[in-house]
Amino acid sequence: MRLSAYFLPLLKESPAEAQIVSHQLMLRAGMIRQSSAGIYSWLPLGHAVLRRVEQIVREEMNAAGCQEILMPAVQPADIWQESGRYEAYGREMLRFEDRHERAMLFGPTHEEVVTDIFRRCIRSYRDLPKNLYQIQWKFRDEIRPRFGVMRGREFLMKDNYSFDLDFEGAKRSYDNMFSAYLRTFKRMGLTAIPMRAESGAIGGSMSHEFQILASTGESEVFYDAAFEELDLLAPDLDVDTIQRYYAATDEQHLPDACPLPPERLRHGRGIEVGHIFYFGTKYSKPLGAAVTGPDGEDVFVEMGSYGIGVSRLVGAIIEAYHDDKGIIWPESVAPFDVALVNLRASDTGCAEVTGDLYAKLKTAGVDVLYDDRDESPGVKFATMDLIGIPWQVVIGPRGLKAGVVELKSRASGETEELSPEAVVDRLAG
Amino acid sequence: MRLSAYFLPLLKESPAEAQIVSHQLMLRAGMIRQSSAGIYSWLPLGHAVLRRVEQIVREEMNAAGCQEILMPAVQPADIWQESGRYEAYGREMLRFEDRHERAMLFGPTHEEVVTDIFRRCIRSYRDLPKNLYQIQWKFRDEIRPRFGVMRGREFLMKDNYSFDLDFEGAKRSYDNMFSAYLRTFKRMGLTAIPMRAESGAIGGSMSHEFQILASTGESEVFYDAAFEELDLLAPDLDVDTIQRYYAATDEQHLPDACPLPPERLRHGRGIEVGHIFYFGTKYSKPLGAAVTGPDGEDVFVEMGSYGIGVSRLVGAIIEAYHDDKGIIWPESVAPFDVALVNLRASDTGCAEVTGDLYAKLKTAGVDVLYDDRDESPGVKFATMDLIGIPWQVVIGPRGLKAGVVELKSRASGETEELSPEAVVDRLAG
Repeated sequence: MRLSAYFLPLLKESPAEAQIVSHQLMLRAGMIRQSSAGIYSWLPLGHAVLRRVEQIVREEMNAAGCQEILMPAVQPADIWQESGRYEAYGREMLRFEDRHERAMLFGPTHEEVVTDIFRRCIRSYRDLPKNLYQIQWKFRDEIRPRFGVMRGREFLMKDNYSFDLDFEGAKRSYDNMFSAYLRTFKRMGLTAIPMRAESGAIGGSMSHEFQILASTGESEVFYDAAFEELDLLAPDLDVDTIQRYYAATDEQHLPDACPLPPERLRHGRGIEVGHIFYFGTKYSKPLGAAVTGPDGEDVFVEMGSYGIGVSRLVGAIIEAYHDDKGIIWPESVAPFDVALVNLRASDTGCAEVTGDLYAKLKTAGVDVLYDDRDESPGVKFATMDLIGIPWQVVIGPRGLKAGVVELKSRASGETEELSPEAVVDRLAG
Repeated sequence: MRLSAYFLPLLKESPAEAQIVSHQLMLRAGMIRQSSAGIYSWLPLGHAVLRRVEQIVREEMNAAGCQEILMPAVQPADIWQESGRYEAYGREMLRFEDRHERAMLFGPTHEEVVTDIFRRCIRSYRDLPKNLYQIQWKFRDEIRPRFGVMRGREFLMKDNYSFDLDFEGAKRSYDNMFSAYLRTFKRMGLTAIPMRAESGAIGGSMSHEFQILASTGESEVFYDAAFEELDLLAPDLDVDTIQRYYAATDEQHLPDACPLPPERLRHGRGIEVGHIFYFGTKYSKPLGAAVTGPDGEDVFVEMGSYGIGVSRLVGAIIEAYHDDKGIIWPESVAPFDVALVNLRASDTGCAEVTGDLYAKLKTAGVDVLYDDRDESPGVKFATMDLIGIPWQVVIGPRGLKAGVVELKSRASGETEELSPEAVVDRLAG
């Protein structure tokens, strides 16, 4: 993509309404614009990151044996009346009537819809287990939406629902999601610490929330140093052991009761990016989601639900990865792999080499943003540092005389001089 | 994917509420389930097709130089009051108030939102042209939703919005979308005939709707036989010539006034799958979306909008491609590339060969559905014919004695006997 054509409305100043760094940087970098309170439009740069985060989540869910579906945003009220949550949910649920005066709502979550699908489609224990997920926009009418996409009203979630015949099955499903979540966040460059949690409005008897560490996190968290030693991408991750590690948010951490020796206790600030619940027959019973068991008797299915805040993660990753100059995207979620900075757009030699690099990198499948604007080097560097592309290739007349261009890592700031051919080999490798 | 684990709730009978074949087949094939009137959940098979259709649309929009964004589903009423459409839109617009009693709506279209983004972000003619698109769920509160996903209330659209400095630019944007649409539909196996259209509620002065031919189409269409000769994937498609070809829906076709010689007039039934509009300054003027022109004067931008019914296309493709036994997916949108039918699951040799084929095809990147159920050959064939996977590989004890399996085309019904190795080469090629 050539920057001269790209829709990237940068802001010089942080808008006053943005209180946290991710919100400020997303606005300044032209990733989002607010449409109304807590509701955002995702512009090309933000949308590209959102899609990459979404795709990592999708790949890990598929790898964990889950099947993707898509449930509607607009739900009928009657299934919520059946589950008993319609009155209970409170004003965060956006309720309305359709033109025939039927009570409807914009789904804040989908336990009722998925349980309704299940009860109409699955009748036998032989069709279990099932784990269905979707990546879908939800709405919660927060009284005071803030922090940009971190606590918006319309937000993108990945939500899974597992169905099992018995507790043992449900525990396997839960543990499977537990380790899938550790892997998912790790692939985005994040270490997520699972903390035993009260399960709140969704209800349940086994629950963990996943917090990532960021100095600007919303709550203080305490955890076992052993987390830092774990290889979260190991295929044989021992879920039971990890679940026994101590981890607690500020509210639940009682220093006197903490079982950890002081030298193993770490603390930091955390941002919640995922939450998993086992809740047994809480929904299957009132909604009548039962299967015929092996002995011919009907059994209410054991369920769990598992959420990842996909749009929230975009903000959370920025909270974890930024500096004074702007965003520092981990490579796995970056909107572009490489930025080409032509220091002198008017110089024929520079334009030729940059154009050639652009063509070759694109052909090799590398996602490139080419700053072809007629701007000063200072403006160009500031732009690339702000939007945080992991690799910058700087092409200037002086280097070209020596046959080299500069390859710079946004994260480390380290630079290296290489021939244009070597840059292509390195980045396309 | 092994069919024994796949969530594929097939129905033996067509539900009474389904009046048209695509709706019947989508329900029978376990692609969708209704959640409330005109609102559907997409189950794994339906979701897979929806994603493939969406991806073709995305690739063609990107190739045409458009940039993807994502605007919110929930919109503030005030921008619709600015454009003058809030009162005019009628009861198909789903309106509600949020908890602070602000008037909101579930977007039936996004001209207002995108014009609002534009006016806040773009100020100079040097940033034109721009063409922004999204693939987003919309809601129209149809009084009588019917025909399944063909006329649902919650539906997935691709909508683009072009911004140009003058009419000449706007015409280039329009023509660019015109040919992109022909290519997009062609890639799904569809010949879409562009028909000059009245532009209805969105308003405008230049407009075409794209109708695909299907014997079960909703309206009768008349068109020039020359369409059938066109190579719609040709890079140098002559848009002006095509726009001059005669094509009209029943309502607009006046036999006495038709300029075509009778031997060139074709007629059939059509389904509308896309619609493009040029509407000038209809939204930019009331919303104040202006740029500074080359001479320093403010100019209201010239706009167009361009829609493709993504979820509707899934139904439309089925209307165009089915037979008595079920769906016949074009390869480009099929939920799986290949189905493996093991005729005797209990036979060790059959299970081994099928398992081996499954592993090798998956490794080669082929999307395979493996019917590993313990069912009769008749049931397995009926399932695969119903869900319409383009290629079936049939593995049975008799063939294996001769070292062959059967490769069958769902579309033509033709079969061929090949060694398992040759099947892998053919399908992975």
